[in-house]
Amino acid sequence: MPSYRIPAADVRFLLADVLRLPDHADLPGFADLAPDTVDAILSASGRFCEEVLLPLNLSGDAEGCLRQADGSVTTPTGFRKAFAEYRAQGWMGLSTDPDHGGSGLPYLMTVVLNEFASSANMAFATYTGLTQGAIATLARHGSDAQKAAYLPKMVDGAWTGTMNLTEPHCGTDLGLIRMKAVPRDDGTFALTGTKIFISGGEHDLAENIVHLVLARIEGAPEGTRGISMFVVPKHLPGPDGEPGARNAVSCGSLEDKMGLHASATCVMNYDGAIGSLVGEPGAGLRTMFTMMNEARLGVAVQGLAISEIAGQNAALWARERLQGRAITGAAAPERPADPIIVHADVRRMLMTIRATTEAGRALLLWTALQSDIAARSPDPKTAARAGDMLGLLTPVVKGVLTDRGFENAVTAQQVFGGHGYITASGMEQFVRDARVAMIYEGANGIQALDLVGRKLPKDGGRAIMAVLAELGLAIAAARDDETLAPLAAALARGVQDLQAATMWFMANAMKKPDNAAAGATDYMHLFGLVAFGWMWLKMARAATEHLAAGEGDRAFYEAKILTARFFMERLLPETALRRTRIESGAAATMALPADLF
Amino acid sequence: MPSYRIPAADVRFLLADVLRLPDHADLPGFADLAPDTVDAILSASGRFCEEVLLPLNLSGDAEGCLRQADGSVTTPTGFRKAFAEYRAQGWMGLSTDPDHGGSGLPYLMTVVLNEFASSANMAFATYTGLTQGAIATLARHGSDAQKAAYLPKMVDGAWTGTMNLTEPHCGTDLGLIRMKAVPRDDGTFALTGTKIFISGGEHDLAENIVHLVLARIEGAPEGTRGISMFVVPKHLPGPDGEPGARNAVSCGSLEDKMGLHASATCVMNYDGAIGSLVGEPGAGLRTMFTMMNEARLGVAVQGLAISEIAGQNAALWARERLQGRAITGAAAPERPADPIIVHADVRRMLMTIRATTEAGRALLLWTALQSDIAARSPDPKTAARAGDMLGLLTPVVKGVLTDRGFENAVTAQQVFGGHGYITASGMEQFVRDARVAMIYEGANGIQALDLVGRKLPKDGGRAIMAVLAELGLAIAAARDDETLAPLAAALARGVQDLQAATMWFMANAMKKPDNAAAGATDYMHLFGLVAFGWMWLKMARAATEHLAAGEGDRAFYEAKILTARFFMERLLPETALRRTRIESGAAATMALPADLF
Repeated sequence: MPSYRIPAADVRFLLADVLRLPDHADLPGFADLAPDTVDAILSASGRFCEEVLLPLNLSGDAEGCLRQADGSVTTPTGFRKAFAEYRAQGWMGLSTDPDHGGSGLPYLMTVVLNEFASSANMAFATYTGLTQGAIATLARHGSDAQKAAYLPKMVDGAWTGTMNLTEPHCGTDLGLIRMKAVPRDDGTFALTGTKIFISGGEHDLAENIVHLVLARIEGAPEGTRGISMFVVPKHLPGPDGEPGARNAVSCGSLEDKMGLHASATCVMNYDGAIGSLVGEPGAGLRTMFTMMNEARLGVAVQGLAISEIAGQNAALWARERLQGRAITGAAAPERPADPIIVHADVRRMLMTIRATTEAGRALLLWTALQSDIAARSPDPKTAARAGDMLGLLTPVVKGVLTDRGFENAVTAQQVFGGHGYITASGMEQFVRDARVAMIYEGANGIQALDLVGRKLPKDGGRAIMAVLAELGLAIAAARDDETLAPLAAALARGVQDLQAATMWFMANAMKKPDNAAAGATDYMHLFGLVAFGWMWLKMARAATEHLAAGEGDRAFYEAKILTARFFMERLLPETALRRTRIESGAAATMALPADLF
Repeated sequence: MPSYRIPAADVRFLLADVLRLPDHADLPGFADLAPDTVDAILSASGRFCEEVLLPLNLSGDAEGCLRQADGSVTTPTGFRKAFAEYRAQGWMGLSTDPDHGGSGLPYLMTVVLNEFASSANMAFATYTGLTQGAIATLARHGSDAQKAAYLPKMVDGAWTGTMNLTEPHCGTDLGLIRMKAVPRDDGTFALTGTKIFISGGEHDLAENIVHLVLARIEGAPEGTRGISMFVVPKHLPGPDGEPGARNAVSCGSLEDKMGLHASATCVMNYDGAIGSLVGEPGAGLRTMFTMMNEARLGVAVQGLAISEIAGQNAALWARERLQGRAITGAAAPERPADPIIVHADVRRMLMTIRATTEAGRALLLWTALQSDIAARSPDPKTAARAGDMLGLLTPVVKGVLTDRGFENAVTAQQVFGGHGYITASGMEQFVRDARVAMIYEGANGIQALDLVGRKLPKDGGRAIMAVLAELGLAIAAARDDETLAPLAAALARGVQDLQAATMWFMANAMKKPDNAAAGATDYMHLFGLVAFGWMWLKMARAATEHLAAGEGDRAFYEAKILTARFFMERLLPETALRRTRIESGAAATMALPADLF
């Protein structure tokens, strides 16, 4: 069975030295994040994830969820108890406004916690993560009555939340939604239709389930303009605020799927279920974007989380498994063979996982910080700038961290050789679980198109210009430092590729939009590589400063610098390949007639 | 459920126009391969794979194998009947020498057939593929008595074969083998020990199972020099040649694993089982290499096979699934949305699968042809040259085709969006099944080390020099053709990277062997890219000639040229990245102390 220790030292380093939390102490909730508060959160959440969630991961996968004859769904053994503990410890509302019963800490602390929970048990964390997304959506778009009826219960963890978008014939293309909402005399609506792939649509962890549902009000226009959002509870709240009458929404079946077995993926049938409108009629898609954006970062967290735990276990295995001798001569002559970590090809795999996981965490927390600044800064200009960054980075973080998360899980499994293919190792579950993160909340190709088609040109390219400017400053500031200069020089080459690819789109995609679409995925990864390089420069700079000051854990800081170097030498050069592909245009991709496939 | 049609047109094209079979009609067995014989084989094997094997693939995965209380193993419903049909149709001995009851056709036809079978049902094909490897090993290294006792039964398919190498503490490092062989008075040996990960170690498909087992004769030296090979049947052949007394070898348990559920992966316990020595004492590893080399190509076949069927289904889905509109305006305005094949990012995925699958098939069959020439050519020089090529290409084909096979399965699953994650689509099974091919018969990192450490420097680099010379000729011959010249120019850049990387190893790996080991995987893929480019140039040349002559299926040949162009523009440029990584050396990879992982 896999082991897991939360990466506490890395998180402390990122909060203090890369995000520089004290610089943001003026934002609401940030002042509460003194180092001892962070320590207390890390310590309590670490215990919960390592001791409660992790032991349920392999068993939860084997057991899966079960739909009973009455339509109820049973989660695997131990999940109810673990959920009760999660609730009792108050993690659900860690970052929710105290007005709604939350702790009001920065959102980035929820991201930190969700990484730990997703490493230890990704399936478990889907129930809580989606509830947090639903809370954020209702807090922002709900009426006062809706907030009062739902938020305290959800923040408490007594009730959970879901998002209902997909229908059998429509996933990405939400304009095709058919779910019907018929107005009732009392101002509510009766919803009828079928939704599929609904995570946590039915389960036994909470007293009530609050569905946020996209549907079309009778007579609404076709396409996305006709879509509205509704809140549809499993049980209608009674006059006392407790779950009352059963609503006409039920789980028709559970999907058998590749992984994430302990997360119930439901077909949900709405048979005139009563719901109330959230936000304006026809604004459903815009409203759902609050939830989707948070969910996209939440899925990025999953990619990072699986990377981390898979990498930890691959490193442990590589240090213990004896096989062959170092090519330079026996490293452990007293043993029958050397541990496989002596082999350069094994190192290559471990270093690749490490370099992308640590950069991924830095980038994710940096993006989460932008979300906090955008939501909490009293200065409109600061908030707008952070919002630009958040908008630009969200598809990159989702697409890149989930692609890397899966790749790293596959690589970590490879380190185990044949043993990695065996279920009991737990390594193959990481691969199966990580796979879905590349697909849901917008498949990664959709993230790439969102980046290239929307986020890049938005406001005349203001966000990408800001990123390039910051990169230029970071590189310039590193040029005089002996350790940092070669890292900065490598990053400068990556930035050049990013700039050139961006310019190429500007020059070639207006007339031929396929030129952008054919290069979108490559651009997303090119951007991700440069963003990782940026984070490595930030981390290496902080490490260099600590080393120069002679303070802290020397080995930790040295490892940061060595890993930065590996990233710049071995991984960052991929930017040139991505640029070459982008600049080759769409012709070869689009040439073959569709009927020849 | 996935569908499947054997790629008959592509195979016919490769045999006739790329391998140019008529040029080899002087080799034993090749003259029998007239086009109508090929057609008959394709037609019969296609029917069997499409109609018998494919329908058992999803059900076999769901049902898996079961070990009964008496230690026997039951394969999934339908497998016994399918195996009986396979046997009745005489596929097992298609390429075995007629002296041993086979049909004597070229080995490459077995490769063709095994691709079809592995596409339709990879798990089923493990039983037959390993038997064919055991047949080849006994045919080459067995005594006359062993051949007489085992080969007719195995070629007939009445008995199956296995290879027993791995033990719990030793996979890659066979020098650690502990399995003991004690000489008995009658010249046989009593084998005692445990082997793990034995595919088809026990099952209900055949009357008898013939295990080829690596063990250490009592008193033999430590390390690989002390290892010998034994043939150990489940039932000792009786005086009538039929299965007699039960031998002391049994299946202790089956492994629960990620995929390939219908292939029994056994822990095999030997408790003084009677076996006879195959070949010389202490030559076990060398002898097993016959089986391992054939098995490595067999595993490459699996990578190709999953690529093919996953790609077929992704293309079908992309042509039928309606979602969104083409970025250049509605392509099917009469329908609610366009088929997703109109989107450039979906095309990118389909074209990547197509370009690597078709090149992979060409390379695999070309390598199989080298195996045939090496084994059958009466001219020692021709045979030696083909043997050089086979030796050099085998690790490349194994490593690259299985890495690509898995990647392509993942990409094909991605085309399906959320539906690809659902078991019923069958797409996730392809990913789980394909995963093992990167691991077994030598993990792909081991293939890379075999390539760089052994095959490259062998005989003063004679094989790589021959490949580079052939590449040079092919490029030069294409320079005057309007269609081929740009393809050849792209290939020339790839060859330059391959040459430079090869020279870099020569200059830098002698003093520091880690410089070779750290770049081995990159070199294997660099080689694979160039080899794929070579095959694309061959295919494009043949297609151009047919088009110029105005003969054959115009659309087929045009598709070949367009796909070649896609490969050269979008995929081949990765050679530069691989070269950059190789030339960065081992320093950054090896710098971090092992205890910091």
